Amino acid sequence: MDGAQALMRTAADAGVTACFANPGTTEMQLVAALDSEPRIRPVLGLFEGVVTGAADGFARMAGVPALTILHLGPGFANGLANLHNARRARTPVVNLVGDHATWHRDADAPLTSDIESLARPMSGWVRTSHHADHLAADMADALAAALDPPGQVATLIVPQDLAWSEVDLDALPTVKQPSRPLVSPSQVEAVSEVLRRSGGRAVLLVGDTGTRRDGLLAATRIREATGCRVLTEANPTRMERGAGIPAFGRVPYFPEQARQAFEEVDVLVLAGATDPVNFFGYPGQDSHPRPESCELVGLAQPGDDVVHVLEALADALDAPAAVVPLAERPEPPTGAALGPAELGAALAALQPEGTIVVDESITSGGPYAGAARGAPPHDVLALTGGAIGYGLPAAVGAAVACPERQVVALQADGSGMYTVQALWTMARESLDVTVLVCANRSYRILEIELARAGVAEPGDAARSLTGLGGPELDWVSLARGMGLHAARATSADSLVEHLRQAFDTPGPALIEVPF
Amino acid sequence: MDGAQALMRTAADAGVTACFANPGTTEMQLVAALDSEPRIRPVLGLFEGVVTGAADGFARMAGVPALTILHLGPGFANGLANLHNARRARTPVVNLVGDHATWHRDADAPLTSDIESLARPMSGWVRTSHHADHLAADMADALAAALDPPGQVATLIVPQDLAWSEVDLDALPTVKQPSRPLVSPSQVEAVSEVLRRSGGRAVLLVGDTGTRRDGLLAATRIREATGCRVLTEANPTRMERGAGIPAFGRVPYFPEQARQAFEEVDVLVLAGATDPVNFFGYPGQDSHPRPESCELVGLAQPGDDVVHVLEALADALDAPAAVVPLAERPEPPTGAALGPAELGAALAALQPEGTIVVDESITSGGPYAGAARGAPPHDVLALTGGAIGYGLPAAVGAAVACPERQVVALQADGSGMYTVQALWTMARESLDVTVLVCANRSYRILEIELARAGVAEPGDAARSLTGLGGPELDWVSLARGMGLHAARATSADSLVEHLRQAFDTPGPALIEVPF
Repeated sequence: MDGAQALMRTAADAGVTACFANPGTTEMQLVAALDSEPRIRPVLGLFEGVVTGAADGFARMAGVPALTILHLGPGFANGLANLHNARRARTPVVNLVGDHATWHRDADAPLTSDIESLARPMSGWVRTSHHADHLAADMADALAAALDPPGQVATLIVPQDLAWSEVDLDALPTVKQPSRPLVSPSQVEAVSEVLRRSGGRAVLLVGDTGTRRDGLLAATRIREATGCRVLTEANPTRMERGAGIPAFGRVPYFPEQARQAFEEVDVLVLAGATDPVNFFGYPGQDSHPRPESCELVGLAQPGDDVVHVLEALADALDAPAAVVPLAERPEPPTGAALGPAELGAALAALQPEGTIVVDESITSGGPYAGAARGAPPHDVLALTGGAIGYGLPAAVGAAVACPERQVVALQADGSGMYTVQALWTMARESLDVTVLVCANRSYRILEIELARAGVAEPGDAARSLTGLGGPELDWVSLARGMGLHAARATSADSLVEHLRQAFDTPGPALIEVPF
Repeated sequence: MDGAQALMRTAADAGVTACFANPGTTEMQLVAALDSEPRIRPVLGLFEGVVTGAADGFARMAGVPALTILHLGPGFANGLANLHNARRARTPVVNLVGDHATWHRDADAPLTSDIESLARPMSGWVRTSHHADHLAADMADALAAALDPPGQVATLIVPQDLAWSEVDLDALPTVKQPSRPLVSPSQVEAVSEVLRRSGGRAVLLVGDTGTRRDGLLAATRIREATGCRVLTEANPTRMERGAGIPAFGRVPYFPEQARQAFEEVDVLVLAGATDPVNFFGYPGQDSHPRPESCELVGLAQPGDDVVHVLEALADALDAPAAVVPLAERPEPPTGAALGPAELGAALAALQPEGTIVVDESITSGGPYAGAARGAPPHDVLALTGGAIGYGLPAAVGAAVACPERQVVALQADGSGMYTVQALWTMARESLDVTVLVCANRSYRILEIELARAGVAEPGDAARSLTGLGGPELDWVSLARGMGLHAARATSADSLVEHLRQAFDTPGPALIEVPF
């Protein structure tokens, strides 16, 4: 058994079931080791941003860590943006980054670079292996670090000579799935007192696992008992929505609206969420949208058992069972008009139960969020770190994690182009992903931000750097070029028809929805 | 004048003529500043790897530094792989990376990350600006650093509040174009003695600017006078080739062939090149292909005036003028067969004088290198750092730098997919780029490396991670989806026809060449 095989077997023993990869020469032993480990499904991405985004989407849904294989510093760098999103999502991802043989590193071969310096900003745990006999233990440590609640990105750098060396091990290490810490009853009691006192002027901000069904139900009970308002994090890692699941607003994106959401709030109770921060700094705005006078009360940190503590708080408040009003499911839209409203209604009207919606719609997805309250229960994965290009890859990963569920990528066109290669992996792996491209032919958010920056009438340069025109992207051709069924919606009627067909047909499909 | 405008004007005053950009909110002032600076052409890339690869290709050809605008840590990370190539090419590139407003950084907003840690591995110079009044001087320092011979990547991090603040400056700083150091006559004399003594068992290894016409002519004279062999670096930044230009072999890629190239060599004279290193470390191979006993003699370092020193050495050797034997230009191939040989012959037969060939053909380009000796004079840009995905973007940059010249991207399919978004920029900017996709439907080099690693019969996992089949990429659809004319060659005849048409028609075109 060589080092690579010992490492891969350790991963499989710990429950790893998929490896997203874009390998190179220095990872050939890791690749070969997958041939002797049938418990791990290899999934090729044609670009590393696909690999890491898929790992993020996979681990958000799978309940086990995702594994990646990436090639040296430059290949790893290509995956960093989506690892940034995984870091913000607190997703358990283990990266295996191949490096030159230990004795070859000092020669400064063309592909040599400082991999640890690249790794640290987006990883909670970084290690370079130093001995073939340690590779399995290093893998176990990486997995344990990734699983440490709430989860994090762990990066293990594997010099190639360690991977190809024979190892001498009595037994492979095991990895224990850690449990989430509970919160003390006295802490729950203290928060219940605060909320009883100031419920009408309090906000309960829910994050981490609290945005799943049981957490949201408990939050509803707390609201009913105290009169507090409930918000969720701006960009939840995984949020359950739809019929029977309470729908709360998120902390808004623009600072003016975010400030408004916290107006006249005396107490902010954090349940698995952190103190909210504006996405960007603007002249004349604080970094935080809450009033300076607002008291911050920590109920549960990310990584705690947030659902349990929310339920304990509801019980401490003697709150009755939650009653979730039934939201009406929209009818499929009809007619010639086609815009974000029709797109939102069509998707909410037709999506099957248990759909996973990967939302990178940026400025186009607003109406869907409202319409989806009446859809059957589903999961929404948000862009947690703001690094665009996560949507298509995350849809790949979610579909690998949950082959029995429909996945929908609600995808803006500008951000979709960053990791467009993900479409090929959907086709190759026959994944049940329906891609809806919101094609507004611009970086619309930048046009808005340019106006906010005081540029009322952009000149040629600014227009050319924020618009996607000349030539227009033809998403149908792009998708067909990577082996997908693809169509362009020309009206609400045709959108509904294409969407029905996509949901009825196994395998991936892309629908371009021009606005 | 705000900080962004002061910075942009400083760049334009220093001779910057193009800015390759993929901006975000934190760069809106930099974008707006381009509206008031008509001397700088803004070029949008739909992914940051396109932006940095274009900057590399531009600066290799333009003789002035390239400028980029990139968005925060994750956007910058997306551009690092091609900055790695630019670092190895010693290309003068200045990156402007926007950051959050200084007062917003500590709030750890979603897009916050350690940009300097990301920048250092691929940059020779890194600075974060600290005051709006310093932005122009910081830009001047970045340009000076980038231009410092032989050239390097410089990264300037610009917090957004500095960009939007009004500045108070009496005058803008200026940037002096540094000259390349000469080498002392005594050094030249010493090397000429060494070569006279051991010419028959010496190799002259030429790199940096020495791979341009005048350097190669001088190297020919040195060879004629001493009997030494001449090699060029494995992956030259810019090499001139074709009729009237001496063609030397490069240091081979695989270690066995590289070792053979240095067999029975007692002296290795380095002229703008560094001590050669094998691309990867393999069991039983040294890091260096030269014999351990071989004496290393430094004639010129990268950054020295390599052409001048080669000419001085030839003169010191009383070498006669170089005679370059006329290589025959191949005829356009005919018939049904189509493989790398036909591709190489067709391109060499038809390419117009002054063509810039961006070579990322990996395993498919060998026959072209031989055939092109008889083509009209042209430039070849090689993959200097081994980070694949440089070809299509570098072709964009070369075409922006030299609008009067034909650019050819000789592109492997696997690596082409990494930054396929570059095709759109070719269309938008109406660049005279002909893309030849060598479509062998695999990461062929990895199949070879897997065999070298002892995996004679790869299993399903290894095959799936090194092959590009199922589904096959349809490059014609991909190109049309981004607005390019595109066709598939089905024979040598049709390749020649499509190639003639592409060269006769202004604007970009893509030809898929399946092998």
